[in-house]
Amino acid sequence: MTTPAPSRTLDHPRRDAIRLEGVLHALSDPMRLRIVRSLATAEEELSCSLFDLPVSKSTTTHHFRVLRESGVISQCYRGTAKMNGLRREDLDALFPGLLDSLLRAAALQAGRLHEDGRGEG
Amino acid sequence: MTTPAPSRTLDHPRRDAIRLEGVLHALSDPMRLRIVRSLATAEEELSCSLFDLPVSKSTTTHHFRVLRESGVISQCYRGTAKMNGLRREDLDALFPGLLDSLLRAAALQAGRLHEDGRGEG
Repeated sequence: MTTPAPSRTLDHPRRDAIRLEGVLHALSDPMRLRIVRSLATAEEELSCSLFDLPVSKSTTTHHFRVLRESGVISQCYRGTAKMNGLRREDLDALFPGLLDSLLRAAALQAGRLHEDGRGEG
Repeated sequence: MTTPAPSRTLDHPRRDAIRLEGVLHALSDPMRLRIVRSLATAEEELSCSLFDLPVSKSTTTHHFRVLRESGVISQCYRGTAKMNGLRREDLDALFPGLLDSLLRAAALQAGRLHEDGRGEG
């Protein structure tokens, strides 16, 4: 007989506690911007383990935490997997059009850097 | 007879060296966001001394430097005054629509925080 794992929930800011400065800080890192771009194109929540970032596992965990604590993403456990989703509805309600502008800007930059052969790693 | 002051110019990133991450980092601070909002509504360049921020003079100087080095503003000396202007043309060319989205988001947030009586200081 196994004991069910304790329910683990993660702290998220309520919508009205999300601050623009925190969102911009969260997106000011290339790895975090890459995570957000992936989540934006995914049709469902993605497990942390799906992201193959060129940084250590603990740094990856840190990046996801910064994104969650700023209100950019939601995280929840599903079994042993930590699942991630964009808080698009909250962000769009607070800052209409901003997330899409940021995603477009990130895509444009990625295209430019790639074309120049400098890449993004 | 006075010797003219040596011409002092300040380093600015070229347009193609401006990075989204740097711009977002520059705007992730409430004081820097406030500076940018003021410059966006001004019809001409503004002297640093016009900004009455609730931080020390050296911190103010630091904030302007971060904005310049990220490519968000241009700075030049006019006599002894350091004049500041938004690099709107460069930002709009690189990231169409982003600056306006950011300014709208900042204005919305300022309105919300003010209405709640929590203010922005």
